[in-house]
Amino acid sequence: MSNKIPVAVLAATGSVGQRFISLLENHPWFEVVEITASDRSVGKKYVEACHWLLADPMPEAVKELELLPTNAEALSKAKIAFSALPADIAEEVEPGIAHKGIYVCSNASAYRHDPLVPILVPEANADHIDILDAQQKKYKWSGGILTNPNCTTVSFVVPLSVLDKAFGVTKAVVFSMQAISGAGYPGVASMDIIDNVIPYIGGEEEKVEYEASKIMGSYDGSQIIQHPIVISAHTNRVAVVDGHTICLSIALKQKASREDLIAALENFEYPDSCKGLPSCPEKGIIYHYESNRPQPRLDRNLGKGMTTSVGRIREDKIFDFRMVSMSHNTVRGAAGGSILNAELLARKKLGMK
Amino acid sequence: MSNKIPVAVLAATGSVGQRFISLLENHPWFEVVEITASDRSVGKKYVEACHWLLADPMPEAVKELELLPTNAEALSKAKIAFSALPADIAEEVEPGIAHKGIYVCSNASAYRHDPLVPILVPEANADHIDILDAQQKKYKWSGGILTNPNCTTVSFVVPLSVLDKAFGVTKAVVFSMQAISGAGYPGVASMDIIDNVIPYIGGEEEKVEYEASKIMGSYDGSQIIQHPIVISAHTNRVAVVDGHTICLSIALKQKASREDLIAALENFEYPDSCKGLPSCPEKGIIYHYESNRPQPRLDRNLGKGMTTSVGRIREDKIFDFRMVSMSHNTVRGAAGGSILNAELLARKKLGMK
Amino acid sequence: MSNKIPVAVLAATGSVGQRFISLLENHPWFEVVEITASDRSVGKKYVEACHWLLADPMPEAVKELELLPTNAEALSKAKIAFSALPADIAEEVEPGIAHKGIYVCSNASAYRHDPLVPILVPEANADHIDILDAQQKKYKWSGGILTNPNCTTVSFVVPLSVLDKAFGVTKAVVFSMQAISGAGYPGVASMDIIDNVIPYIGGEEEKVEYEASKIMGSYDGSQIIQHPIVISAHTNRVAVVDGHTICLSIALKQKASREDLIAALENFEYPDSCKGLPSCPEKGIIYHYESNRPQPRLDRNLGKGMTTSVGRIREDKIFDFRMVSMSHNTVRGAAGGSILNAELLARKKLGMK
Amino acid sequence: MSNKIPVAVLAATGSVGQRFISLLENHPWFEVVEITASDRSVGKKYVEACHWLLADPMPEAVKELELLPTNAEALSKAKIAFSALPADIAEEVEPGIAHKGIYVCSNASAYRHDPLVPILVPEANADHIDILDAQQKKYKWSGGILTNPNCTTVSFVVPLSVLDKAFGVTKAVVFSMQAISGAGYPGVASMDIIDNVIPYIGGEEEKVEYEASKIMGSYDGSQIIQHPIVISAHTNRVAVVDGHTICLSIALKQKASREDLIAALENFEYPDSCKGLPSCPEKGIIYHYESNRPQPRLDRNLGKGMTTSVGRIREDKIFDFRMVSMSHNTVRGAAGGSILNAELLARKKLGMK
Repeated sequence: MSNKIPVAVLAATGSVGQRFISLLENHPWFEVVEITASDRSVGKKYVEACHWLLADPMPEAVKELELLPTNAEALSKAKIAFSALPADIAEEVEPGIAHKGIYVCSNASAYRHDPLVPILVPEANADHIDILDAQQKKYKWSGGILTNPNCTTVSFVVPLSVLDKAFGVTKAVVFSMQAISGAGYPGVASMDIIDNVIPYIGGEEEKVEYEASKIMGSYDGSQIIQHPIVISAHTNRVAVVDGHTICLSIALKQKASREDLIAALENFEYPDSCKGLPSCPEKGIIYHYESNRPQPRLDRNLGKGMTTSVGRIREDKIFDFRMVSMSHNTVRGAAGGSILNAELLARKKLGMK
Repeated sequence: MSNKIPVAVLAATGSVGQRFISLLENHPWFEVVEITASDRSVGKKYVEACHWLLADPMPEAVKELELLPTNAEALSKAKIAFSALPADIAEEVEPGIAHKGIYVCSNASAYRHDPLVPILVPEANADHIDILDAQQKKYKWSGGILTNPNCTTVSFVVPLSVLDKAFGVTKAVVFSMQAISGAGYPGVASMDIIDNVIPYIGGEEEKVEYEASKIMGSYDGSQIIQHPIVISAHTNRVAVVDGHTICLSIALKQKASREDLIAALENFEYPDSCKGLPSCPEKGIIYHYESNRPQPRLDRNLGKGMTTSVGRIREDKIFDFRMVSMSHNTVRGAAGGSILNAELLARKKLGMK
Repeated sequence: MSNKIPVAVLAATGSVGQRFISLLENHPWFEVVEITASDRSVGKKYVEACHWLLADPMPEAVKELELLPTNAEALSKAKIAFSALPADIAEEVEPGIAHKGIYVCSNASAYRHDPLVPILVPEANADHIDILDAQQKKYKWSGGILTNPNCTTVSFVVPLSVLDKAFGVTKAVVFSMQAISGAGYPGVASMDIIDNVIPYIGGEEEKVEYEASKIMGSYDGSQIIQHPIVISAHTNRVAVVDGHTICLSIALKQKASREDLIAALENFEYPDSCKGLPSCPEKGIIYHYESNRPQPRLDRNLGKGMTTSVGRIREDKIFDFRMVSMSHNTVRGAAGGSILNAELLARKKLGMK
Repeated sequence: MSNKIPVAVLAATGSVGQRFISLLENHPWFEVVEITASDRSVGKKYVEACHWLLADPMPEAVKELELLPTNAEALSKAKIAFSALPADIAEEVEPGIAHKGIYVCSNASAYRHDPLVPILVPEANADHIDILDAQQKKYKWSGGILTNPNCTTVSFVVPLSVLDKAFGVTKAVVFSMQAISGAGYPGVASMDIIDNVIPYIGGEEEKVEYEASKIMGSYDGSQIIQHPIVISAHTNRVAVVDGHTICLSIALKQKASREDLIAALENFEYPDSCKGLPSCPEKGIIYHYESNRPQPRLDRNLGKGMTTSVGRIREDKIFDFRMVSMSHNTVRGAAGGSILNAELLARKKLGMK
């Protein structure tokens, strides 16, 4: 029998669910033993119910798994549940699952605003995982809920938090050019995006502004103190399959040169708690010196999709610096990020090394 | 014989040159009588030398015109020359043509930095055309040089100058998503832009920052006083055929509400000097109330490509307001803008009504 | 009061319905007086219920029209009804409307297989309109049903029927590269078509094969004799907004040279019954001599979207000739074609000239 | 010291050259020791001269290699030279290199028409490699020239040759939708392909028709007997980054059912001479049962880009069957195919196992 931790994928047939299934194939620590779906698909085998969308083929190991209903009662084996649920369903079912003793690593936005639920980005705030203790005590859960941020937030908060730790960041204007895969499937209609740009994504600017300051905030032992940074976002959809590209203008507390900023990013190292985790890339951040990088098609797969690419750091007339940041929105920005969080959790709470 | 003003198109076979040829077909005031090209094509008929790229067919009237060399000596009939020249050639030949008594309406950047050469955008600074008098005196030209701005500048300076006149604009962060047609032909390689974004356009950010403050500046009778606005630009290329989309964050001098800004844009009227010009659209600015507009594919052809679309005006946490502006980069932003300038010139200097 | 023929648009809020509304704006013969929609929108004004998708703005004249239910009872003024209905609804309601004395010009496939319902393509079979007499007698209708073909069929049957009349066509292999607009809205998901091809369109190959042989068939006074041509189709979806491009391999009955074929296409003239109809373009077919034409982006708007472009006629090792044909799928291939049919009908049956 | 075979890459800085460099990184049998480029780059280091275009980063091992001129004299270590040369340069230099004792595995078309030069596709004609003996004798070479076909040919000849061996194929109509990467870099202008199709690729149809019948031909010990199949091609460029999709109509000698054809493809096995070669995928052909597959974005990376995907086999009214075939044009269709050929050569001639 396997020594791996049994895990569930909630909403396994959707586009993020599929990415979970794919990234968890042959995972050294986790084994998918339970999968859930909406009523329409419950009782069917995964291979029958799922309209598979990824280029990598569907893993053999899940093809014959039966789809369960999405609720705490249905799960009997998993110790960790990866949630690809829509926000409204997540809101309803995730607490019950946490109460039952399962750790929910959630890609859903439902509990990101809860002061006891961390939005975890290991490059930025690995220590926030410790809020889980307060969470368990307060909510009387034996499991917990751990979220990863919106895919747009993560594509710039990684370098932003590194620069904040080094120099202090007080303001940031964030302009996004987001990939269509961020909207799921069928998601963006082709008539809306071929030969076009959509300068609006519902609710996205508010999420980006809130989440980044929570992620960059500090944990004082009982709660998260939101970071005082002021963020203003413009979010846009463009005709790119995968990879969110972000232009940033930032104001710093401390005086620093362009070279100082690049050095801070190039010297970034994962905290010891994260080093060696199966999904942790060798380099969390790569700085590109070419004037026209990063570009999503060329750079999104660096570090198997887990590395954030930064480039074009240059001075700014209004703030201090301008730059470009980019990462893979469905890997680093969704399922991959959630799995990295689960690995950190497994090391901290479930005895994995 | 025609009563129209005889005009030339310099570099008539390139992508902007073709757009000039197309927009000048059946123009009520202008008639193309001379066309020039590089040495390779001189002496050939237009229909033989030109690899036509536009959806509208090549106008019959120019097919048999012979391509002349690009210099002052070669032009013997034109009173106005539309220049689609590359900057280095423009720098060399435009003054000689102006000296000969021809008005050069130039899409080239060569003389945009000259304090006696206006960068004319009738919605913003129609009065700058009067610098031509100072220009003629100083340079001893009987013609002159009149430029239109870079296509990215024009796609946001139209609403920016209207808001400046109403409320004063002190700072603007400009973030562009630019169409491939802005790079000419062959221009952007398809390998670089399909499923991709290029977060860099050489020299573009500097042009945008300089040109907008010159356009918004005031003419004191002898020179242009640059506007004190501080502009910071991020320029990007996306997979759109025509239409540059700009996100703007702006700081205002005077307090104003979102409704005030929309009203100022909706109440915009062309100055009397421009009303009724053949290329002047009924509305210079259209404000879109839908949350996801303007979009280049849907809005670029408004006003036959001469109208600027604005939308998404909303408050901002760092400055005062955020918004989106968009116009057709090869019509309003290049040949169409240059022709509108020439019409204003023809009314002022050549007796057209 | 207007002397125009009052017309209705059935399913006016969908993508084909919108194209009808747009093309009927300021139509010299027709005036839209009634519009219908599904239950969800009935009772609302057009401007409220319709998510407008076209680049040309919504016509003022229809904005305040109230949406009616889609059935014969609801229509009280129209003499012609343009149908953009889905096939199942069309099947249910179109006969009742025809029975009531209204001519249904239908873009739906529901009755294309009925031997008494013509699939009318004026360039190919203008005389088939006379079947309407037999139809009225047989079905005891005072109106009638007149269909236009699938947009893929029409993009090659125009030149195919011209060549058939000149030389006889016995076999045709048809390969399509179809635009996304052919699938309506939201239609094709962007995840399915950016950086991709879908080599399958449900039911399309069968439609193409059947419809072309019916259109090319002859009307013997009582019924249509299907043309004996054998057609084999491969239909594909590509990342093009508008314009279906078709590669054809054809076998001819009579020996002919490449020049003979080109001459037959270039000499094509509309039958007298069609000449001068408001939507009838000057040239129904344009032959392109450039080796790489027709191309959808460059040629789809010829003749205001009503002209079919042909190119690359060359000899073939297996059959006799290969070629490329292209037309605008939502204009010539849908609403525009249906309106042209209605104009022919109005001339024949309703006294318009 | 390495036991690997030293190899050269000719024209290493171009797009196919880069793909060779990338695929040869950590190759178990081959080590890149020499690289060449055009005069402009000779003497520079690879990392300085090469504008790297691939998503995978440039291999460390080649960064410091110095670029040599492209001729036999310059090569002093390589036993195999991978040629990514343009046809005219290839024609000039490849024989000299072969004469010097080096095996040229060429992606260039220059010698594909030579009856003593095989166009090798291991799935189809692995035995053609034996022509090298006749080639050496006739041309007095101690090395040789081995070509792989045009990327379009290979994307359908793999299943076509399998079906030919099983049932005999007498005729094939081939219709391609080709990726932009097939045209190199900068290659296809974005203005030509976004929202567009180009129904023409210069020289491609002739190559496809000739090469497939040579590949499917038989080697009688002294020369290749061209296969009597008649092939007719329509080649088109579409907005896909990688992966050529081909629709085929085929006529068979023997009667067979749809199931027979699928079985023949599914039972395909590489000949023993190829099994276990480092670049030989487990399955050379995968048959997709879904009605809308293969699709380039979803299927091009199967077998690390070396597997050919087939789908949609269905009966045909004119010939016997229709189907769709697709493979990765720059991996299976170019550098990857050439490396697979070199591996077979290394096993046959250079003692590798």
